[in-house]
Amino acid sequence: MMQKTIFYHDTDCGGVVYYGNYLKFFEEARTLYMQERGYAISELMKRGLFFVVSRQEVEYKYPVRYADVINVDTKILEVSDIKIIFENTITNQNGRLCTKGRTTLVCINAQGMPTPMGADTKKALSPAQ
Amino acid sequence: MMQKTIFYHDTDCGGVVYYGNYLKFFEEARTLYMQERGYAISELMKRGLFFVVSRQEVEYKYPVRYADVINVDTKILEVSDIKIIFENTITNQNGRLCTKGRTTLVCINAQGMPTPMGADTKKALSPAQ
Amino acid sequence: MMQKTIFYHDTDCGGVVYYGNYLKFFEEARTLYMQERGYAISELMKRGLFFVVSRQEVEYKYPVRYADVINVDTKILEVSDIKIIFENTITNQNGRLCTKGRTTLVCINAQGMPTPMGADTKKALSPAQ
Amino acid sequence: MMQKTIFYHDTDCGGVVYYGNYLKFFEEARTLYMQERGYAISELMKRGLFFVVSRQEVEYKYPVRYADVINVDTKILEVSDIKIIFENTITNQNGRLCTKGRTTLVCINAQGMPTPMGADTKKALSPAQ
Repeated sequence: MMQKTIFYHDTDCGGVVYYGNYLKFFEEARTLYMQERGYAISELMKRGLFFVVSRQEVEYKYPVRYADVINVDTKILEVSDIKIIFENTITNQNGRLCTKGRTTLVCINAQGMPTPMGADTKKALSPAQ
Repeated sequence: MMQKTIFYHDTDCGGVVYYGNYLKFFEEARTLYMQERGYAISELMKRGLFFVVSRQEVEYKYPVRYADVINVDTKILEVSDIKIIFENTITNQNGRLCTKGRTTLVCINAQGMPTPMGADTKKALSPAQ
Repeated sequence: MMQKTIFYHDTDCGGVVYYGNYLKFFEEARTLYMQERGYAISELMKRGLFFVVSRQEVEYKYPVRYADVINVDTKILEVSDIKIIFENTITNQNGRLCTKGRTTLVCINAQGMPTPMGADTKKALSPAQ
Repeated sequence: MMQKTIFYHDTDCGGVVYYGNYLKFFEEARTLYMQERGYAISELMKRGLFFVVSRQEVEYKYPVRYADVINVDTKILEVSDIKIIFENTITNQNGRLCTKGRTTLVCINAQGMPTPMGADTKKALSPAQ
């Protein structure tokens, strides 16, 4: 669970968080999630493994506003040899569900080719764990 | 068709456009698309009509890089009294398909309640037109 | 002192934090600084007081990179009836000085006219405090 | 002279362009300025030359708003063997001066060391030209 305060730079002139900026919150949350499980993205990169986003879905249910303090919850829905599907749920300080995101990441090597992430990473990140 | 050159601020340290920034390109393209049909978002706002994104899907198929010149094509898939579904297709200067986005917008009033966009707007934006 | 981890969205294809993004870090740091002293910007807004940036200077001394953990230090250099000058200093996890910023904020009312921030706010934020 | 339309993603909940986003406009304007003179940054990079910002000053004089169409004027104030100082002036569609920026760029090599940009580049970019 990542907690985050909303600043001016997160918002737009509609008075709420810009719809593209939620993807930054998802990136932060899944990075911390992997790091907490011992798989820092910066460490995986040193092993020649990169995760790139191949698909993103977002449902915007309730606006997040300036000075709101949101919770960004992360969960892994599915892991295969080369793919991870994350789900993020954002709620505001009143517990109201604001945004849901589903992000598919593919593991690639330095040449940009899909590459198995390794049995250890796969096991550590699998939902059953 | 909107043409756009990619600058440093569009990219990230992976060397390609940041996955959240495509949503900015979609916003720009659909704004221009509506404006060309006589429905400037800034004019609709003066009539008390606001369009908010309720759903976004993105497929990332090929990376866009610094100094690339992309085409962002816009098409409307569906229009109802209160909803528009846009589809954007991004190709690079070599004609390669890079990104596809599908954005659902809901028309709301100043109080944030779903509101019919009006028969004229609906007709003008309908795919058959 | 605000601590912050650097994510992909903070960086550009030069491999380092985008030069415009430091202004977001400055915003976050001075907002928290004022909040800790009992002057939340969201509360001041309810009293009809808004702070807008009239001048910014930045010196970029050493690049901040992906996964760096930076400290953003905030200090107020000067306060007058309508103006505050902040100074931010960013150091990385090795204590290396990376960036220095100086931001001048002017207090305005809802009509956009310069307005005294009030004796209490001025006193609470003065460097002598 | 670069012309630019302001979109939601450029603005914040204060109803105007976010103060950090002007640095993106400066980047775009100076990139196009150099390109028009035959010095595309992407071409210089292939020769192992990179320009990094070492100093930025911005004066915010009048707010830029959603749907404004701004002109970003670029001029070079000074060129030395390793340094270029750019000045950008932003005016809105009514000719009103909104923002002034001054950006110092240093030419570095792939190892990050200051490096002469070459007599041809220096001459081509010098204000006298």
